[in-house]
Amino acid sequence: VPSNTVSIFIAAVASFTALVVDGSPALGESLHGAAPAAREVPARLLPVPTTVSPALQQVIGAPISAFQLYRPRTLDEWRAAIEQADAPAAEAARAAWKQLGVNVAAATIAGVKCYLITPPDVPMANQKRLLVHLHGGAYVFFGGDAGAGEGVLLAHISKMPVISVDYRMPPDHPFPAALDDAIAVWNAVISDHDRTKTALFGTSTGGGLALATVLKLKEQGAPLPGALFLGTPWADLSKTGDTYFANDRVDNALVTYDGLLEEAAKLYAAGQNLKDPLLSPLYGDFAGFPPTILISGTRDLLLSLTVRAHRKLRQADVEAELHVFEGMSHAQYLPSFPAPEAQEALKEVARFFDRHLGR
Amino acid sequence: VPSNTVSIFIAAVASFTALVVDGSPALGESLHGAAPAAREVPARLLPVPTTVSPALQQVIGAPISAFQLYRPRTLDEWRAAIEQADAPAAEAARAAWKQLGVNVAAATIAGVKCYLITPPDVPMANQKRLLVHLHGGAYVFFGGDAGAGEGVLLAHISKMPVISVDYRMPPDHPFPAALDDAIAVWNAVISDHDRTKTALFGTSTGGGLALATVLKLKEQGAPLPGALFLGTPWADLSKTGDTYFANDRVDNALVTYDGLLEEAAKLYAAGQNLKDPLLSPLYGDFAGFPPTILISGTRDLLLSLTVRAHRKLRQADVEAELHVFEGMSHAQYLPSFPAPEAQEALKEVARFFDRHLGR
Repeated sequence: VPSNTVSIFIAAVASFTALVVDGSPALGESLHGAAPAAREVPARLLPVPTTVSPALQQVIGAPISAFQLYRPRTLDEWRAAIEQADAPAAEAARAAWKQLGVNVAAATIAGVKCYLITPPDVPMANQKRLLVHLHGGAYVFFGGDAGAGEGVLLAHISKMPVISVDYRMPPDHPFPAALDDAIAVWNAVISDHDRTKTALFGTSTGGGLALATVLKLKEQGAPLPGALFLGTPWADLSKTGDTYFANDRVDNALVTYDGLLEEAAKLYAAGQNLKDPLLSPLYGDFAGFPPTILISGTRDLLLSLTVRAHRKLRQADVEAELHVFEGMSHAQYLPSFPAPEAQEALKEVARFFDRHLGR
Repeated sequence: VPSNTVSIFIAAVASFTALVVDGSPALGESLHGAAPAAREVPARLLPVPTTVSPALQQVIGAPISAFQLYRPRTLDEWRAAIEQADAPAAEAARAAWKQLGVNVAAATIAGVKCYLITPPDVPMANQKRLLVHLHGGAYVFFGGDAGAGEGVLLAHISKMPVISVDYRMPPDHPFPAALDDAIAVWNAVISDHDRTKTALFGTSTGGGLALATVLKLKEQGAPLPGALFLGTPWADLSKTGDTYFANDRVDNALVTYDGLLEEAAKLYAAGQNLKDPLLSPLYGDFAGFPPTILISGTRDLLLSLTVRAHRKLRQADVEAELHVFEGMSHAQYLPSFPAPEAQEALKEVARFFDRHLGR
C-alpha cells in the first residue's frame, strides 16, 4: 500500500471537527503532523450495568478498593498489608474447596511448596491431564492457602487435576525467586508428564508469570506447556498500556497503577528494569508459544495488557483466543464466582484446554 | 449545520473544563444526586498511547469529533449534516479505490443500488467466493460512494469480490427500509451463489444491520451466510451497554450516545421500540448463526456491544472470535488504514473468511 494513501474517513473526521473550530488550519496540521497531545476526559457517573447478572452487579457495584491506593513504605507496613489481604482470601479459598468437594493437599515439588488440587470426579479423558497454576497477587499477596483458590475453581469446572505453585515472594524473596520456583516445579512435573497433556495458567500476576515462565523455558530449550490460560495478565509492570489510564478508577478492583501496584512492581523487581522481558513479558518474543486463551473485562485496568498479549501472540501466528466480559473489572470472574459470567469464563477455559490438550 | 450550534459545543466544553479545574460543586452535587448505585469517575488526562504505531497515534490523538454532539432538529438540519459528512468521505473512498487499483462499478440488484467491488487479483481459491457488505454511518450517513470505502479495503486485503449494498436510509426511508434492502440483495445474490461461499459483513451500523439481516433470514427460513464479520456492531440502539458510559468521551470518534447517535437511532426507528430485535439484534436469538469474527478497540464506545454480541454467540455455541485493538476508538481500523493495526485487523477478517468459506 503506497504510503500516500489517503485514509478513508480522515477527511470526514476533519470536516466534523471543522464544525467547531470553523475551518481552523491547525486541525489538519495536528492530524497529519504534530505529535498528538494528551486529552482531558471529564468526570462522569458510571452506573452499574443492567446487562450483567444480579450476582455480578453486586461485585461491579462495590466501591473502589481503597487498599489499592495504599503505598507501603517499610517492611513492617508491607507485612501488615500482606497479612490483612491474605487472611480473608485464605478463608474464602478454604470455604470454596470444602463446598465444592475439591481435595487440596500440601506437597513439596523440587523444593517448592505446592498444593495438589483434585476434583472429586476426574473422567477417563482427563486422567493423564494436568494443569499447573500460578496464583495472582501482585507478586506479594496470596501466598499460602489464598493462592490455591483459583486452582480450586478451575479444577472444579474442568474436572482436571491442578498443581498450584506457592512460589516465593517479596519482601523476603524478590525477582527472580517466583520465576525460579515456577520453572523448577514445571521441569519436575514435566519429567514424568507428557507436556502436550499439561497446561500452565494463572490470573493477573499468575498470567504474567506464566508468560515469563514460557519465555524462560524457551531460553532453556525445555518442553513448553500444551496450552496456556492467561487471565488478564500483568504482562507489563511499567505504566505502559492505554487502559492503565483509560480505566483508572473505572476498575473498582485494581483501581489504579499509582498506588499499591506500582509499589509492588518495584518491590518485586528490586532494582531491575521493569521492562526486562522476564518481568514484563510483553517485551519478549512469543514465537512458538502454545495455544493460548485470554480473559479480561471491559472495565479492567489491565484490558490493554490482555489485548496487547493477544495481538502479540497472533502476530507470532500463535492460536490465541480472547474473551472480554461486559462490565468486569480486573479478574472479577474469580471473586464473582459462582455468578453465571464467572462460570461461563472458566468453562471457556476448560473447553479450550479440552480441545488443545492430549488425552 | 447552523452556526449557532457551535456555541453549544463550546459551552459544553467550557463546563467540562470548569469541573476539572475547580471541581465545580454544582456539577458535583448533580452527579451525586442522579442514581444511588452509580459511581463517580473523576476527570483525568488521557495520553496518546505509546503502544501503537505512529500512524495510529495520529488517529487516536485527534480531538473528539464535535459532530457527534450535534442533535439535528429539522429535516433541513439532517440533510445539511448528511451532506457535510458524506462528501469528504466519498472523496476519500474514491481516492482509496483508485490508489489500491480496486474496480468499483455501480449496479442495481433486486431494485437496490449496489457497488460491485473487484480487487485486481482474485486467486483461483476465491473465484466463487463473495462478500456482501453493509456500510456504517448510524443508518443515516455514508450512502453512495462513501459507503463503499470499507468494501474496497476488504476486497483489497482479502482478494475476494465484494458487493456493497447502498441501502435506503432516513430521513426519507426509515426502518425497515435498510433491512428490507439488505434482505432483498442477499436473497438475489444467494439465488445463484453457494451460501457457504458467501459472507456478510459490516462495521458499526453495518454490523448491527448484518445481525438483523441474519435474524430476519432465520425467520424466513432463507439460506444464511457462510460467515460473518461484525466490526464493532451497533447491535443495541438503546443506551444499554457499559461502555456507552465508561467510554463516553474516551472514544474520540463516536464520542457519546447523547447526541447524534441518539438522534440517529430515533430517526431510523421512527417510533418503533429501540429494543425490537430487528433494530437492536442483541435482543434476538443467535442460535444457528454462522461462524463470526468481531473487532473492537479498548476505547470503543461500542466495546460493550461487541463483547455482548460475542458472548451471546458463544452462549448459543456459535464459533465466534473476538479481536480488540489497543487504544482504538470506534471503528478506527478504517480511518487509520493503512496503519499496521488496520491492516492487521482486516487480515484477521480475511483469514477468518478464508478458513470458513467454501471454495
